[in-house]
Amino acid sequence: MAEEVGRLVAEAGAVLVCGGLGGVMEAASRGCSDAGGDVVGILPGATPDEANRHVTLAVPTNMGHARNVIIAHTADVLIAVEGEYGTLSEAAISLKLGKKVFALRPRFQLDGVTIMETPSAAVSKALSAIE
Amino acid sequence: MAEEVGRLVAEAGAVLVCGGLGGVMEAASRGCSDAGGDVVGILPGATPDEANRHVTLAVPTNMGHARNVIIAHTADVLIAVEGEYGTLSEAAISLKLGKKVFALRPRFQLDGVTIMETPSAAVSKALSAIE
Amino acid sequence: MAEEVGRLVAEAGAVLVCGGLGGVMEAASRGCSDAGGDVVGILPGATPDEANRHVTLAVPTNMGHARNVIIAHTADVLIAVEGEYGTLSEAAISLKLGKKVFALRPRFQLDGVTIMETPSAAVSKALSAIE
Amino acid sequence: MAEEVGRLVAEAGAVLVCGGLGGVMEAASRGCSDAGGDVVGILPGATPDEANRHVTLAVPTNMGHARNVIIAHTADVLIAVEGEYGTLSEAAISLKLGKKVFALRPRFQLDGVTIMETPSAAVSKALSAIE
Repeated sequence: MAEEVGRLVAEAGAVLVCGGLGGVMEAASRGCSDAGGDVVGILPGATPDEANRHVTLAVPTNMGHARNVIIAHTADVLIAVEGEYGTLSEAAISLKLGKKVFALRPRFQLDGVTIMETPSAAVSKALSAIE
Repeated sequence: MAEEVGRLVAEAGAVLVCGGLGGVMEAASRGCSDAGGDVVGILPGATPDEANRHVTLAVPTNMGHARNVIIAHTADVLIAVEGEYGTLSEAAISLKLGKKVFALRPRFQLDGVTIMETPSAAVSKALSAIE
Repeated sequence: MAEEVGRLVAEAGAVLVCGGLGGVMEAASRGCSDAGGDVVGILPGATPDEANRHVTLAVPTNMGHARNVIIAHTADVLIAVEGEYGTLSEAAISLKLGKKVFALRPRFQLDGVTIMETPSAAVSKALSAIE
Repeated sequence: MAEEVGRLVAEAGAVLVCGGLGGVMEAASRGCSDAGGDVVGILPGATPDEANRHVTLAVPTNMGHARNVIIAHTADVLIAVEGEYGTLSEAAISLKLGKKVFALRPRFQLDGVTIMETPSAAVSKALSAIE
């Protein structure tokens, strides 16, 4: 699901901004970079070494979980895929910043988040939210 | 309710770490400082000017919402009083860091948070969690 | 001079990472983007609005001067052009992180910084430092 | 020298804000806490464990060198004791923020820093700068 989100972001000509590590982040990064898109990985650590190999631009912040807040400032809109505490903190800050948050199978409940059923619906809604 | 939490923190000889601004933060700060306790205000802005007047040590971070993450690292345990997106992000990061989170009348739902009915129960549970 | 640094960075196929604002940052950004290169602007503020118009990827950190530290972590090597206190803090942290720092007409003195006479010498030395 | 600075800060009833680790930071912390003063350690790491034992309030930021910027925002005035790249970055940011910087035997050169000969002169000048 994350991989399809990444692919659709690339096909729309948008940039994928994510946490740059493994799991959901890596799947989305792979989908995006395989489709020729740019993948910005805003990393918790001090060096780019921990970035997954699909990240095309690594931004090592050395700020741990505070990098979630930088992701919220950098992205125009948030699509959460599953996600637990870290993703939830990103979603909460994004909403606080007045940005739209869409979620695919979220593992959390949060007022203001719009649940979506499919990657294509999520990406399409997200893109229209920032037009 | 926040004021009573602050007072009980002071009476237990603990330090209150909070965001240092108004509302719930100010009520807790007042309760703590009026009872002779230390109040650390980890502020979002660049200067101490925005701290409420009950803060005894202001730490202006100039990091906006990322200061929530610093609060999560600095506090040994979290007591959320009501609280919305900002508080939720603090709670999520605290849980991610393996800390206990107690909540009084939370306006959010989050797995791992223990709901408490009274300030005295919350402070007492919080203190035993870090002993 | 900054514009030429930007152009040479682009011609070498490298990415320009800078503070994304005006002055020297804007001149370098213009040189790089006019030559078809990517310009990452790691911004002090909360939104991309303050980025100069040559920035191709804006990363608003909302962390003020602490974004200088993120620049030091993100760049593989630093070329300081003139520069005052902010640049100096970037140079100092870059050196602390074990990265090479080259400077064109620096307005500061700092052990470990290599002074260069021309943009082409600076870019060429910087690129060989990271190969 | 750092220890004496710490002691004089305590005797003046001021709070010592420092990086909270070893070396010069620990000497200043010891001087201050032995004289009954408060020592705030704004730490680079994720937990208070790395604080020297004279720190009376640990603020673990998990932000590495970016914690130097938080120190610059938190302190009203800076006294640099010896110090290398990290201290220099703090001094540069403090000057950028319009704060006074005094230095005892600095290992760096920086316009705007006032060199002092003795701890007592440095503390006395620093205190009058913020009155």
